[in-house]
Parts: sequence; C-alpha cells; structure tokens
Amino acid sequence: MEKVSIGLLGFGTVGTGVVRLLTKDRERLEERAGCKIHLEKVLVRNKNRARKVLIDNRKLTTDVYEILDNPEINVIIELIGGVDQAYRYILRALKNKKNVITANKDLMASYGEELLLEARANQCDLYYEASVAGGIPILRTLTDSLGADRIQKMIGIVNGTTNYILSKMSGDGLSYEKALASAQRLGFAEADPTSDVEGLDAARKMVILSHLAYSIPVKLDDVKIKGITDVTREDIVFAQKLGYTIKLVGISEVNNGDIDVRVEPTLLPDGHPLAAVENENNAIYVYSSALGETMYYGAGAGEGPTAVSIVSDLLAVLQNMALGVTGNHIFLPKKELHARKDNLVDSQFFVRMHIKDEPGSFSKLTDLFREQNISLGKLYQEPIPGRDIAEVAIVTHVTNKVLFEKSFEILKQLDVVVNAKYFRVERG
Amino acid sequence: MEKVSIGLLGFGTVGTGVVRLLTKDRERLEERAGCKIHLEKVLVRNKNRARKVLIDNRKLTTDVYEILDNPEINVIIELIGGVDQAYRYILRALKNKKNVITANKDLMASYGEELLLEARANQCDLYYEASVAGGIPILRTLTDSLGADRIQKMIGIVNGTTNYILSKMSGDGLSYEKALASAQRLGFAEADPTSDVEGLDAARKMVILSHLAYSIPVKLDDVKIKGITDVTREDIVFAQKLGYTIKLVGISEVNNGDIDVRVEPTLLPDGHPLAAVENENNAIYVYSSALGETMYYGAGAGEGPTAVSIVSDLLAVLQNMALGVTGNHIFLPKKELHARKDNLVDSQFFVRMHIKDEPGSFSKLTDLFREQNISLGKLYQEPIPGRDIAEVAIVTHVTNKVLFEKSFEILKQLDVVVNAKYFRVERG
Repeated sequence: MEKVSIGLLGFGTVGTGVVRLLTKDRERLEERAGCKIHLEKVLVRNKNRARKVLIDNRKLTTDVYEILDNPEINVIIELIGGVDQAYRYILRALKNKKNVITANKDLMASYGEELLLEARANQCDLYYEASVAGGIPILRTLTDSLGADRIQKMIGIVNGTTNYILSKMSGDGLSYEKALASAQRLGFAEADPTSDVEGLDAARKMVILSHLAYSIPVKLDDVKIKGITDVTREDIVFAQKLGYTIKLVGISEVNNGDIDVRVEPTLLPDGHPLAAVENENNAIYVYSSALGETMYYGAGAGEGPTAVSIVSDLLAVLQNMALGVTGNHIFLPKKELHARKDNLVDSQFFVRMHIKDEPGSFSKLTDLFREQNISLGKLYQEPIPGRDIAEVAIVTHVTNKVLFEKSFEILKQLDVVVNAKYFRVERG
Repeated sequence: MEKVSIGLLGFGTVGTGVVRLLTKDRERLEERAGCKIHLEKVLVRNKNRARKVLIDNRKLTTDVYEILDNPEINVIIELIGGVDQAYRYILRALKNKKNVITANKDLMASYGEELLLEARANQCDLYYEASVAGGIPILRTLTDSLGADRIQKMIGIVNGTTNYILSKMSGDGLSYEKALASAQRLGFAEADPTSDVEGLDAARKMVILSHLAYSIPVKLDDVKIKGITDVTREDIVFAQKLGYTIKLVGISEVNNGDIDVRVEPTLLPDGHPLAAVENENNAIYVYSSALGETMYYGAGAGEGPTAVSIVSDLLAVLQNMALGVTGNHIFLPKKELHARKDNLVDSQFFVRMHIKDEPGSFSKLTDLFREQNISLGKLYQEPIPGRDIAEVAIVTHVTNKVLFEKSFEILKQLDVVVNAKYFRVERG
C-alpha cells in the first residue's frame, strides 16, 4: 500500500485541526503508517471562505458525491455533525467500501449499531474515538486494554459544559445563571445549552460507552436522564458540609442480566478521584472484575484533542488496511440485556429540606425514616436566621430506590416540611 | 491458526492469576482470539507443592528447556522475575522464534532495548504491559492512542508502596516508621523495602515509560533518584498548610533535545488530579501537544490487575500471530537525547526550616532570597512553643535549580537558621 487518499467532510474547527495535524506531522505520521497520506478532497459549504490553514483551493468541493463516489478515496472522515445527512453520507461511503472515521456522537448514539453492521458487511472500518471525550482515548482502552477483563460499571463525567458550570458554582460560589453565562463567554457552552444542561449530550456518550463496554445494544430511550438546571448553589454548599461534591455523572452498570444507565446530578464523596475532576475536563471511572478500579482523565473536547483522536483512528485504519483486515475489529453486539427496574436499584440518597424550626420537628423526620426502614448516615442541621426555619441535609445509607421515593413523597407531606429535594449519592 | 500453545515460566501469585483467568474465561478469550488457547507447560521450582488453581500435574516441569526449546510452544510468559536468568531465558525464547510476554520491569529497564531488537530481528513480539503499573493499561495507551500525538512530559505515581506510606503519614498522621510497618503488614511493602522507599522501583518504571513515550533509549543511570526516607510527618503537615500534598513522583520531560528524568518526593498543589491518588494506587499524568493533559489511574499491582495485563498482551500477540505481523509493532528507539544539565532545569522549591525566633531573623532570610534573585511565593511561619525557635515554610516562584541549590547552601550557613531542608514543587 503506497498511498492512502482521504476525503474530509466538513472544514470547521475540528476539520481545520485535522488538516493542521496532517500537514505539520506528515513525515512522522507517514513513517508510522508506512504509506503516503494524501488529502484528496474536502467538503465545504463555501469555497471562497478564508481558512485558518493553508490548503490548495482545488481540493475544496461543495459536492459531497465528488467524495463519497470517488474511487480514488479510501478513507472518509465525517465532521459535518447532525444526524440525518451524516447518516446518509456514511451509509453511502460504507456501501462504496470506504473506511469511515467520525466524531459524531449524536449519530453513533442513534444509529451506531446499524452503521457498524453495515461496515462489517462491507469489510470496512468504522472508528469513532472522537465521539466520546475527545481528549481521552477511552473507546480504544475499553476494546483493547480491557478486552481481557469484564467491565461491570462505569461512572463518567462526560460533559465538559456542565462540569464547568458545577465547578464554578462550587469553587467560585457563582449562581447557576452566572456560571452558565461564564461558560458561554468562554465557548464551553452553546448559545442554546439545552442538550448539555439537560443531560442529553452525556446520555448519548453513555450509550456509546455502554455499547462498547458490554457488547450489547443500548438505546438512548433506555437512559434515565436528569440535567443540572435544578441544582442550586445551596445544594452544593450543603453537600459540601457533609463531605460531598455534586457532579453531573453518567452511570452505567450491568448486573444479573440487567443494565442500568442513567445521567443525573450525583453526590460524590470528596475523596473520590472523580470529585477532583474540575472545570471543562472529563473522566471515566471504570470498574472491572480483574483490573479493579481505573480512571481515564483528560480534556473533554477542543480542536486539538478531537483532532488527535481522529488522526489516531486514521492510523489504526491505515494499519488495518495494510494488513488487509479492515472490518475485522468491529465490535458487534452479542446479547441483549433488559433495563433494570427501579425496584432493583439500590443507592444512597441526599435529601435537602427546609423544616419548621420548632420543638419535635426533627424527630418527626427521623420517625418517618425509621418507619420506612431507611437508615440515616450523615446529618446536618442549621437554623436559618430570622425565618423560624431550619436547613436540614441528610445522607441515607444504601436503600431501595422505589422505597426511598415512596418515603420521600410521604416526607414532603409532613406538616413540618416546608420544601424538600433529593439527589443520588455514589459510594466512595 | 487453530491453536496456540503457551509456556509459563513461574507459578507464583501472578502466574496463578494468569492460569485462573485462562481457565475461567477460556471461552470468551478464545472467541476473541479466534483460536484455541492451550497451556502446554509451566516452569515450577517444586512439582509437588499444593496449588491454588486446578492444574494437570503433568504440565508442571522443573526443566526450563522443556519450555524454551519446545517446538510446540508459540508464546512464552515470563513471570520468574530477577534479571540475569530471565534475560537468558527470554533471549533463548526469542532466538527460538517464540513470542514473549513479561511483567519483569527490572529486566526491561536494564535490557529492554537489546531484547526488543532481538525480538524484531526474529519477527517475534515482546510485550511488557504488566511491567509498569500493572492495573493501568498505560504502555498500550502511549503507543496506540497517543501515537498521533507528541508526548512532552509525564508525571507518574508509579510505586504503590511509597504512595501508601505517604498517604498514611498524610491522612492518618502516622510516622514514616509506623506507615512502613502498616504497609508491610498489608503486603504492600517487602520485608526489605529498600528498592521501593529509595525510589529505584519508580525509576525503573520511568525508564520504561520514557523509552516508549519518546522513542529514545533511556538508561537507569540517567535518572536522578531520591527516595522518601527523609520525608517526615512535619514536612507533610507544613506542605499541607501551604496547600500542597507530598508524593513520590517520577518526572520525565523532553525539551529542546534534552531529557530530564527524576524520581523524588515532590509537592503537588492540592487541586492537581495526582494529589487525589491515594494509598497503593498509581497514576500517570501525561502532557502531550495535541491532547493536552490526560491522566491514567488504577491499581499499581496485585494478582488480578497484573494477570489481566498479561492476558491483554496475550490477546494482542494472538492477533498479531493470526495476521502474520508479529514483531512489526515493536517500537525501536529512533534518536538519542542528552540528559538535561541541572543548570537548565527550572522549578519551584519548598523550603522548610527552623530559625531562631528573634527580632530580624525572618528578614535575614528574605534578604538572602532577594540577593539571590529568588522570589518567594507562599510563606508560613509559626513559633514552636517553649523553644525560642520558629517553624518556617516557603514555596519559591520558579527558579533555576543550580541557583536555588547554591542559595540553599548559603541559607544553611546563616546564623539564624537552625536547620533546613527542601523539596521540589510541581506546578498545578
């Protein structure tokens, strides 16, 4: 194999980063790949726009079929984003026997299984390392290094925007609104931050991770999702008083043939390595039967990290091409698991409430928890000056989720309780 | 390729773990490997000893050549440890065209380059993931995932024993002696802990990591090594007062054609992800030009983690055998770098001293630092009750190492200074 020709779909920030890496490190990359790497065509919206990297203008095209149907091109890198169009383009590329690399998590979370099957059928590679935590080589680690192990559970801080917001609320004492505005100013949050702050982005990444880790098809609909818009500065403060940090985490767990995937604001004990993951950084904490607990930490996104993930995928594809084994490495789901029912989920919970600051009110709470067979771990109470109300924070011991939720509904009806909310707590 | 036959050298804790994994997960591993995995022979010292796993006694042998010269055997797993004998066995196995997997860091730190060249010459694989941080797939990450990137610097907590000791001194307030005794009781430290506490074990791992990360030959003699035997409980307490945690870290850095590899007790700012790595755990923090900062965290050793690293290596070897590409993936050093001279090393430093508690004594210190052009960052002073002596802790700004050491010698001679010591400080 003397030369490989690449077609690039999309020339935005990440596309620019990929072209920059391919140009700057060409010699080193070609030495590793053992062949010439030729950028044949780049799909753009506007051929006349100024570009941040030097590129021969004749390589630019606005016609995607000049790339997808070009017999010279062996590898397609898809960076246009979105779902429907990207899906059609990648499907056509695969049918045309082209290897595909994509950073498109929305697409892989929705159509990953179908596209992987298509790639396999055409003996083509489909790599997507950059779709989850662009700055952390997590997908390759799950398939290669943990290949001899059994993964049982993953906890991921996989959305940089929400981790940045919660870090600022926690460390700098900002309100949610101010922290979000700061994230938007720095480019860590979109003008419309819905998909991040409501947890959808994290859920998509957990689908992709779960798919790979357990060799099972996981659907976005199976993920229970709760975002961070209800997390207040006070929730964070009282969690801290009990020794916890609130993070938006994705949790994915298999057990006895069931799978449980959820994204929600969760209290992590301060000593937990994930609790130290600050700002826009990401980390994935993996529990596996032989290796035990491992964590993979890095930048969540950004031009550099995402581009290097794409180029790492490209090197893997080139190696497979040279060996004539493209498509062989593709993981195919092997079994189906059922979504775990909530009555089989056990957890600790953090309850924060305002109660009337009058004699006996605290014992009404503890009576309720005792009646419901929920035992309490940590407790914190402080009067709110001048309001005849006390702030109460409780962390329960491990209890059944359905039992807890039922008890919480009763708790809210108690005459001494002014208001109450709860979050899940992850054990250390 | 229908069947692969394995010869195992050594049947201690890790060997038992490997046999257990190969037995328990045989079906799943063979499905991944696409061939039968057959354990042919195991080298033991005593054939009649009771074993913790079920094994056919006829597979045990005390004659290593029944394995090394056995034409049936394709893959040798070396777990006998030590350097000279293991070196001879592996060399012979390679010359006999057998692929080799080893967990032997002493061997790889001393003879890694030579053995890799021999493997390459014989078109055999030589994998050694388990030799560094058995519970973290770091070697594969450096070669595969970071293959498209340029690694500039690594900071590693790569010795579980010393990290456990420092964690207990820091968290539980134990003295060095008591923490060491606790580590020995729990099996985290050897009866003779010299190689761990003096930093030699960590240095060997940094040699292996540097070798791979920068594609250059690094010798153990090039590593500046300082252990933790001089770290006291008080050093830890006063570092904490200034917001730092003391860890034994290995630092390896390339810059302008120079390389600097050192192992020494180092202050890490409390917010640094490495500062949260507790007890016997390991972590490697990597700086690379495109990905930025990433960290890989997990158990440092233990039967399970080390055995799974060995079996992951085995799966990689089996894949290479099936593709007929054994030996191709072997990294060969490409260039030589010079050890950086200390006059080119810049760092922050933490100085802890006792000074006479009398008027003007503190200003004599600050005068000295000003004369020497070393500017001070954080300062802490407190009188020691009833002793006319004050405890002083200082963190300097970044300064030249040679200049700092010269100034430190002058400082020790000041009449107001009773005693003084210093450690390096890593920036956050």
